[in-house]
Amino acid sequence: MASVDVPVALLGYGTVGAAVHRLLEESADEIERATGHRLRVTRALVRDTSKDRGFSPEPGVLSDDFATIRDDPAIQVVAEVMGGVDPAGDYVLELLRAGRPVVTANKQLVARRGAELFEAAAAGGVQLRFEASVCAAIPVIKVLRESLVVTNVHRVLGIVNGTTNLILSAMEGGRPYGEALAEAQRLGFAEADPTEDVAGIDAAAKTAILATVAFGTRVPLDWVDVEGIEHVTLDHVVAARALDMHLKLIGRATLVGDRVDVRVGPAFVDRHHPLAAVEGAFNAVMLQGDAIREITLEGPGAGGIETASAVVADMVSVVGTTGTGFLQNDPVWRKLERLPAGDLTSPFYLRLEVDDRAGVLARIAHELAAEGVSVARLVQQPGDGHAVLHVVTHEAPAGRVEAALTAIRALPESRGEASALPVVSDRGVEELGWT
Amino acid sequence: MASVDVPVALLGYGTVGAAVHRLLEESADEIERATGHRLRVTRALVRDTSKDRGFSPEPGVLSDDFATIRDDPAIQVVAEVMGGVDPAGDYVLELLRAGRPVVTANKQLVARRGAELFEAAAAGGVQLRFEASVCAAIPVIKVLRESLVVTNVHRVLGIVNGTTNLILSAMEGGRPYGEALAEAQRLGFAEADPTEDVAGIDAAAKTAILATVAFGTRVPLDWVDVEGIEHVTLDHVVAARALDMHLKLIGRATLVGDRVDVRVGPAFVDRHHPLAAVEGAFNAVMLQGDAIREITLEGPGAGGIETASAVVADMVSVVGTTGTGFLQNDPVWRKLERLPAGDLTSPFYLRLEVDDRAGVLARIAHELAAEGVSVARLVQQPGDGHAVLHVVTHEAPAGRVEAALTAIRALPESRGEASALPVVSDRGVEELGWT
Repeated sequence: MASVDVPVALLGYGTVGAAVHRLLEESADEIERATGHRLRVTRALVRDTSKDRGFSPEPGVLSDDFATIRDDPAIQVVAEVMGGVDPAGDYVLELLRAGRPVVTANKQLVARRGAELFEAAAAGGVQLRFEASVCAAIPVIKVLRESLVVTNVHRVLGIVNGTTNLILSAMEGGRPYGEALAEAQRLGFAEADPTEDVAGIDAAAKTAILATVAFGTRVPLDWVDVEGIEHVTLDHVVAARALDMHLKLIGRATLVGDRVDVRVGPAFVDRHHPLAAVEGAFNAVMLQGDAIREITLEGPGAGGIETASAVVADMVSVVGTTGTGFLQNDPVWRKLERLPAGDLTSPFYLRLEVDDRAGVLARIAHELAAEGVSVARLVQQPGDGHAVLHVVTHEAPAGRVEAALTAIRALPESRGEASALPVVSDRGVEELGWT
Repeated sequence: MASVDVPVALLGYGTVGAAVHRLLEESADEIERATGHRLRVTRALVRDTSKDRGFSPEPGVLSDDFATIRDDPAIQVVAEVMGGVDPAGDYVLELLRAGRPVVTANKQLVARRGAELFEAAAAGGVQLRFEASVCAAIPVIKVLRESLVVTNVHRVLGIVNGTTNLILSAMEGGRPYGEALAEAQRLGFAEADPTEDVAGIDAAAKTAILATVAFGTRVPLDWVDVEGIEHVTLDHVVAARALDMHLKLIGRATLVGDRVDVRVGPAFVDRHHPLAAVEGAFNAVMLQGDAIREITLEGPGAGGIETASAVVADMVSVVGTTGTGFLQNDPVWRKLERLPAGDLTSPFYLRLEVDDRAGVLARIAHELAAEGVSVARLVQQPGDGHAVLHVVTHEAPAGRVEAALTAIRALPESRGEASALPVVSDRGVEELGWT
């Protein structure tokens, strides 16, 4: 097939945009070998065309007028790398409505306005690809949509925020939360205002997108039950290690019958689980499905060049599938309900501080039994004038565990916190021994 | 785009073939949503059309005449799931020459006859996809060819044989090799004649395919330096654990400047390396490249339904890209030379048994220094009337390490085996402590 120049455009020309342009130029031969085409950036939308930039496009490429991109019929794919929900969202919508395929790296945009964007893409018969919006260069969206097309994926488990994983890794080394956070900020992994990372907001957007694609149903952001790592203490980290587990911030999407549960929160991950070994700022996503059992993808989940690499791969995929009808569908094809938050079952780790006197254990066991929560493991540790109970339960509904905790907190013998964290394990909790 | 029935054919109708047929039927809606088309098996080549089968195709689908598939212009993609190099290779070649896209699950075929098959595919302007030939449902070929298209991948590291990984996992539990092998055979993971797995033959074919795709150069099977696990002893496994490492059978392909090194053999994998955590019969492949640092994919590397799922995904991808020119190229586009086997550098673990007397350590240190091999860690263990030295070297060429070992074996103080295994670590060996 004769090589054809394919004009493409960028919305935004910051770190990622410039890296996309550089990769397209440096890898033009590789792309031509794969697609038969050379992708050439003919327009890039910026706010200020006179600003000095590290990687300078040819004269005439930079433009501060969106209409020059929207109205240029030669442009065959547009990459949105400007970030933010506005005006990026309106630009993407206009492009899709104009029948222009779009690639975006914008997780907040996909998580918040995905419904209308995909509707416009499907109506216009064009693709909207968004690999870079979740875990940068880790190709989890492509694998979900193209490799696992005949696998009913029923669970997605991920470490989808590198900053919090780095902080938790540092805490495993003995540093308290505040110190670990400060170190992550010093290294440039956490923002001065770290809320989006540590409160789980970033992870929630990514998990909502993964759930939407995996289950084919719209998962709005406000369905995601979110807990961050701000309240994780060294006590929890130490208890996890004593159980031969690792404390991780886990994004989890579960299909339970016809209902969907999506949550982000700290969890104890069994040492033998593939996510347990993910250290530092890395990300990993495990996809569990019928035919494939599970596939885990791990890699750097952030970074300008990593993100740019995913954007370029999406542009190449658009060019490689245009006109075939492939993936021009909205990934959402059904409307499932949300599972009531208390209904999701999991094994749980409970940490209970109680008076160290006769009969306490019996009362606690009674409260757990009253909610149908059965104990797989229990270790009592002497504390400072009181006792700390570490309990691992069998699989139980989250709501029953919470109800038992409420009852336990009301006991006169209860002292300090009574907290619960889900346990992630591929094996039965019976096999989870204390070391 | 209106849905169109797409006739497809199978070569072979055994476990994988029947599973492909079943997945195509059960997931017809999913496939139609993704591609706009319904894939319908209209022909399946079998040796004996009268044989009783679990999943029965409609009358007229089974055929013992290859020509009915080759000469049917309606068939748009053919999946080769019959196995073996002959006659599968000739069939695939004829189909490609006839302009028919082919999907194959056959690693020996791709590893042995890839050159002529891809030449025919490129000449005919059709795709030859082979995801299922390497690690079953783990989509490593798709990720390499489509997601990492602009990433110069320079290293591939993999646990690509589940049987040997299962055996080595059992040996970590304290079982000697023979017992672990027998158990794997009893569980159906190892064949009665386990040679293809334990001698590294299966891993060599997969690693050669991965190297070919990753580096864009033909890697013939006889380039692969292969060592199996038959000579791995519990001593090695115990030494690995003492070093906080895991003994794994590693397939490794490395691009060193303009040269290629491909090998399969036992290696010590640092506990913090993503491959260290791969347990039991699972497979994992790490792809290291410029823009993405590294991506690791893990999952079940074998199994009929897993393999079938990858075959179907390839068929869907063929249908989704036909006519666009995408991936209709031969993945091989350059001709690189083989790196001389002794030139590949790595840190190494050395196990040396020597007389326990003064001056021995000095002599060994001298022989290592004479070959420019520098020692990062050394632990001397008292043995039964002799001493065992565990040495971890800094990065050194394999040939120099082998020469030093030969000199050490010739020392009068040398007793028993002096052996070397490469160390796989993302960190400097300085950080590899003994526990």
